[in-house]
Amino acid sequence: MIIREIRVTPVAFRDPPLLNAAGVHEPWALRTIVEVVTDEGLTGLGETYGDLEHLGKVRECAQALVGLDVHAVNTMYARIGAIVGDVVTDLHGLTGAATKEKSVDRVFAAFEVACLDIRGKAAGVPVVDLLGGRVRDAVPYSAYLFYKWAGHPGEEPDRFGAALDEAGVVEQAALLVKEYGFKSIKLKGGVFPPDQEIAAIKALHEAFPGVPLRLDPNAAWSVETSIRVGRELEGTLQYLEDPTPGIPGMSEVAAAVPMPLATNMCVVTPEHLPPAIASRAIGVLLLDHHYWGGLVRSSHVAALCDTFGLSLSMHSNSHLGISLAAMTHLAAATPNLTFACDTHTPWQDGQDVVVPGSLRFTDGAVPVPAGPGLGVELDRDALARMHEQYQTCGVVARDDTTYMQRFEPGFTAKRARW
Amino acid sequence: MIIREIRVTPVAFRDPPLLNAAGVHEPWALRTIVEVVTDEGLTGLGETYGDLEHLGKVRECAQALVGLDVHAVNTMYARIGAIVGDVVTDLHGLTGAATKEKSVDRVFAAFEVACLDIRGKAAGVPVVDLLGGRVRDAVPYSAYLFYKWAGHPGEEPDRFGAALDEAGVVEQAALLVKEYGFKSIKLKGGVFPPDQEIAAIKALHEAFPGVPLRLDPNAAWSVETSIRVGRELEGTLQYLEDPTPGIPGMSEVAAAVPMPLATNMCVVTPEHLPPAIASRAIGVLLLDHHYWGGLVRSSHVAALCDTFGLSLSMHSNSHLGISLAAMTHLAAATPNLTFACDTHTPWQDGQDVVVPGSLRFTDGAVPVPAGPGLGVELDRDALARMHEQYQTCGVVARDDTTYMQRFEPGFTAKRARW
Repeated sequence: MIIREIRVTPVAFRDPPLLNAAGVHEPWALRTIVEVVTDEGLTGLGETYGDLEHLGKVRECAQALVGLDVHAVNTMYARIGAIVGDVVTDLHGLTGAATKEKSVDRVFAAFEVACLDIRGKAAGVPVVDLLGGRVRDAVPYSAYLFYKWAGHPGEEPDRFGAALDEAGVVEQAALLVKEYGFKSIKLKGGVFPPDQEIAAIKALHEAFPGVPLRLDPNAAWSVETSIRVGRELEGTLQYLEDPTPGIPGMSEVAAAVPMPLATNMCVVTPEHLPPAIASRAIGVLLLDHHYWGGLVRSSHVAALCDTFGLSLSMHSNSHLGISLAAMTHLAAATPNLTFACDTHTPWQDGQDVVVPGSLRFTDGAVPVPAGPGLGVELDRDALARMHEQYQTCGVVARDDTTYMQRFEPGFTAKRARW
Repeated sequence: MIIREIRVTPVAFRDPPLLNAAGVHEPWALRTIVEVVTDEGLTGLGETYGDLEHLGKVRECAQALVGLDVHAVNTMYARIGAIVGDVVTDLHGLTGAATKEKSVDRVFAAFEVACLDIRGKAAGVPVVDLLGGRVRDAVPYSAYLFYKWAGHPGEEPDRFGAALDEAGVVEQAALLVKEYGFKSIKLKGGVFPPDQEIAAIKALHEAFPGVPLRLDPNAAWSVETSIRVGRELEGTLQYLEDPTPGIPGMSEVAAAVPMPLATNMCVVTPEHLPPAIASRAIGVLLLDHHYWGGLVRSSHVAALCDTFGLSLSMHSNSHLGISLAAMTHLAAATPNLTFACDTHTPWQDGQDVVVPGSLRFTDGAVPVPAGPGLGVELDRDALARMHEQYQTCGVVARDDTTYMQRFEPGFTAKRARW
């Protein structure tokens, strides 16, 4: 099954004003859709980041893969490594340190997923079967709460409304739980002073007794603040995510707080694993196939976590259905992925590049798509529309900080801030 | 592709009197051949140990896998785990500590390989393509020298003759290099006092200048002896394999000798990796899919080694062509398997259960079989003949020590001996 053509299409879709330690989401989020086409006419889908420099590398690498068999992923990885070279691109920093290896893994992942989609279609089996077969029929996701403005400045409020205090956060949780059936809840923090976010978690704990909670301030706190918050939240958090920057700081916090620390910031590429493990910096790795080099490499990392006694959950950036399908297949095939995964899906609120129907949430979980490959089909009208949005929206790379500064000129994304 | 039937056939084949720290190889070596048959009539091959207790578990587990899809390897692993339970079987101890997880991995591996063989056949691709695709077209193996008697007591000398001193070892190396073209040489030690084995390595170094050498005494030495030998062999060994028992001892030796230490004894199951890595006990892991849980789990371990800066080579027990094919596909797909692998193939001297022709040595390397799946075909006449040998040979479990004691009543397999 030789790759005859690869189509790379950047898309943009509406994103609400979600607040985080780096600033606020812009009105448009970007992704890149990859279509790998074989000489037999099979098409495989992949989805990755849409930032301009990354998109350029994806386009350049796509050319270099034409002519390879879809199984030749080691060769693909080597070719992509040669092209990406020493370029390190990762503007917003919300997925941790950028490294050369991570940059290669980020470009490679979309092609790898697309090739697995093709292999599944050719074999008549879902991608989960190419990863060892399902250990669960549906993958639980968590409600991903954000502090947010009612709407983007100058626009009407969106249907989610404002969430700028405890009451707003609890109301948002109630809406997401009602619509999706989520059984666990994560709050993106690092937005307000820690005591306000502690109060929000306590309010969620009271409003949703027994529901596992998580708080993720994106490394906005010092070690001292992290330890204080962790201790104050004893008994309320399933895990505390990236309270403070860097492996040494996380290690200090981990030794002093009662709950495990999770990360998608201080351990984001293989070279971070040895020092993090040696210093016991983390208890939970938030896997993300988009930067861990695709589904098979993510399964290697999952096995490593099992070997070293690390738990696993899954990280998410704003994404569409191809990514949700890929995440679901991977999680369904990973025995030790026992925590509910993160997803931004609710914030896309129905916008998608895949034909509706194959992905749905039932009781907060996504049943593994049953069709061959990823089990999702590209909606060409939606793709064309979202590509047009990309061409006209004016955003070319995610930059939450600059957008925030338009409304709060003194804002900085300094970490640790508190 | 549903598993309709699994045939499990123990076989025996002639083995020369190869000496090691545990004693001497018996006249018959055992293996178990596994044939997995799907409802479409595709057959996949696997090969594993032939010891009676292990064979019993393989047979019991085979029944439990009928009805599963060949992709459902996570389910297979769970079922086998439930059946193997806490049973720990590993008589001879030459592949290190037996653990529950290792016992499960040992049973599982043969089925996993057979299922990959089927998947490759169904997709029309070699197994290497299911593991990421080839990074090398041929896999280099090393000449695996043994001290040996001229023949089994009471029998005519075999064609390899005796090797009981430096001259015998060099002569044996010359024969294997001439016949197979090997580019590196390993000597199984732990047989004679260390100074004699030092002399043998020095004689090989002189006879084969520039050829990478390895010495493996199977943990026959104390820490002090290991350090002394390691220092005396500076500049002659590519790596020193399992000089002394246990991770703490290996760690002490590793810190004091100039060459990396390799192991297939102190790290043989995932739980051994964290302490070995933390204590820097090893520099090279000798991978063996027969006890690391098959090819995909071995690829996880290979990725882990890459992450932690461990090098990789491959371990071998007496085996037949199905195993050689599986090892070759795995090594060909593993970028960081950069050392020549071990194989006992020369000692089987043409005896095999696979149809001749698809496996051959060229310049010490085995070209990846080109056919779909493993690329080897079962020779049913040979299988029947070797099964009959199994039924009549009288050996039911490998026991080098008891066999040695028939000729040297005072022999013990004590480690460390020196």
